[in-house]
Amino acid sequence: MVLYIIGLGLGDEKDISIKGRELIEESDVVYLESYTSVLFVSKEILENFYKKKIHEVDRNFAEENCEQILNEACNKKVSFLVVGDPLCATTHHDIILRAKKKNIDIQIIHNASIMSAIGESGMQLYNFGQTVSIPYFEANYKPTSFYDKIKVNLDNNFHTLCLLDIKIKERTIENIMKNRNIYEPSKFMTINEAIEQLFYCEDIHKKNVITKDTLGIAIVRIGSNNQQIISGNLLTLKSVHFNDPLHSLIICAPLLHDIEKEYFDMYLSTS
Amino acid sequence: MVLYIIGLGLGDEKDISIKGRELIEESDVVYLESYTSVLFVSKEILENFYKKKIHEVDRNFAEENCEQILNEACNKKVSFLVVGDPLCATTHHDIILRAKKKNIDIQIIHNASIMSAIGESGMQLYNFGQTVSIPYFEANYKPTSFYDKIKVNLDNNFHTLCLLDIKIKERTIENIMKNRNIYEPSKFMTINEAIEQLFYCEDIHKKNVITKDTLGIAIVRIGSNNQQIISGNLLTLKSVHFNDPLHSLIICAPLLHDIEKEYFDMYLSTS
Repeated sequence: MVLYIIGLGLGDEKDISIKGRELIEESDVVYLESYTSVLFVSKEILENFYKKKIHEVDRNFAEENCEQILNEACNKKVSFLVVGDPLCATTHHDIILRAKKKNIDIQIIHNASIMSAIGESGMQLYNFGQTVSIPYFEANYKPTSFYDKIKVNLDNNFHTLCLLDIKIKERTIENIMKNRNIYEPSKFMTINEAIEQLFYCEDIHKKNVITKDTLGIAIVRIGSNNQQIISGNLLTLKSVHFNDPLHSLIICAPLLHDIEKEYFDMYLSTS
Repeated sequence: MVLYIIGLGLGDEKDISIKGRELIEESDVVYLESYTSVLFVSKEILENFYKKKIHEVDRNFAEENCEQILNEACNKKVSFLVVGDPLCATTHHDIILRAKKKNIDIQIIHNASIMSAIGESGMQLYNFGQTVSIPYFEANYKPTSFYDKIKVNLDNNFHTLCLLDIKIKERTIENIMKNRNIYEPSKFMTINEAIEQLFYCEDIHKKNVITKDTLGIAIVRIGSNNQQIISGNLLTLKSVHFNDPLHSLIICAPLLHDIEKEYFDMYLSTS
């Protein structure tokens, strides 16, 4: 019948739009996507507030059992809740294509996302280049393509939004091979870890992209009541003790506009 | 006391978040910014739904009488409503700086913005470069810097979000000089007009940026119930008859990823 894809915004149960909440109320089944981002409140709080049973969906389920959700949406009203804006991550483009092929009606309810909320840093969204993801380095796998993308942005005097890796309900390769549903503890990359990886890339590639003078802005738990926005050079930020994740990092363009400069100074780390 | 800066989202009175609406209810005074964007519903509908008198603020007021709002916020709860996300446009960075200097508490309520909602086009937000604004050309003033910015994006295989000019409650130079508060009718640039200006830039600069093969995606009234997303080459899009503004335009990167290509084909203009 219909699939509602509803953005929850960034913080808690009250960041949903009134329209989004009304659609949840009308829905027969409600799923919550919990593998690309998380809210700062538990599923139970959402259930109490929205007065609906919510089924959490992990990466395996969405990839392997996406058909089940779509088949339900053929004759029911199904809500699929996504933290932030539902289409900021690339993950949910696939389910929409598949729904359209089955002629399921889709309604998308947009919401705040990290990609626009970073305007609060004072850096102008017009001056951002390509957004990059920084993945957790592993012993034998240290992809550094984000380093070159940051270089392109800096060369064009663009800011870069760095989205930091999160690992939710993932399995080790061994457990995947042995088909065991044993999950690793969730982990969320901190700004400190991200900066360490950035300096590692500089050590390897030596293109003078990340230096001790490179300026950054730490974005911590934006949209929550203990959010932090702290600016400084990357070396300083590397040793700041931030509030718990989620963390994101802006790498600033070399030349800041006047208002950007004022904001940068206002948020300057005092540590 | 406190200034709430509240994003209204993109469509109508129900796109505000539950948190945002609660803050309006608590507020002593409510202002609505109506010069950088508009909702698809009238102020009266907002007033009825939010059960508050809303004072519309135009560009003159915000620039010249910003102090009045800030002084009120020294001893009252003041809400300042902004269409979309409050900090996507650069306009509102100034009021926040000034409020912070007066030690006024500020709370920002983020919401959906065009900058993230364009994810619905299927183009991945990671693959966008710098956003550009296309201003209305005037007889003696035809700034074309957006053309060079689009070139940088295309050269790096980035998409470009083009935000199209809107003129709300503006005065002619003659009326400004004579200090007459006579306002021109509002106008909102259409995708057709924007494409015309893009081809004009190509004629002047001839850098092979905008050609008959350049691909674009028309984004019309996104977030409303008569939104349109229509893809095609710019020549085709130039003659499509779209729903009323607001309009935005994506100029696609030369090479699309597989899923982007699927979306592009799904939205292809049939005219």
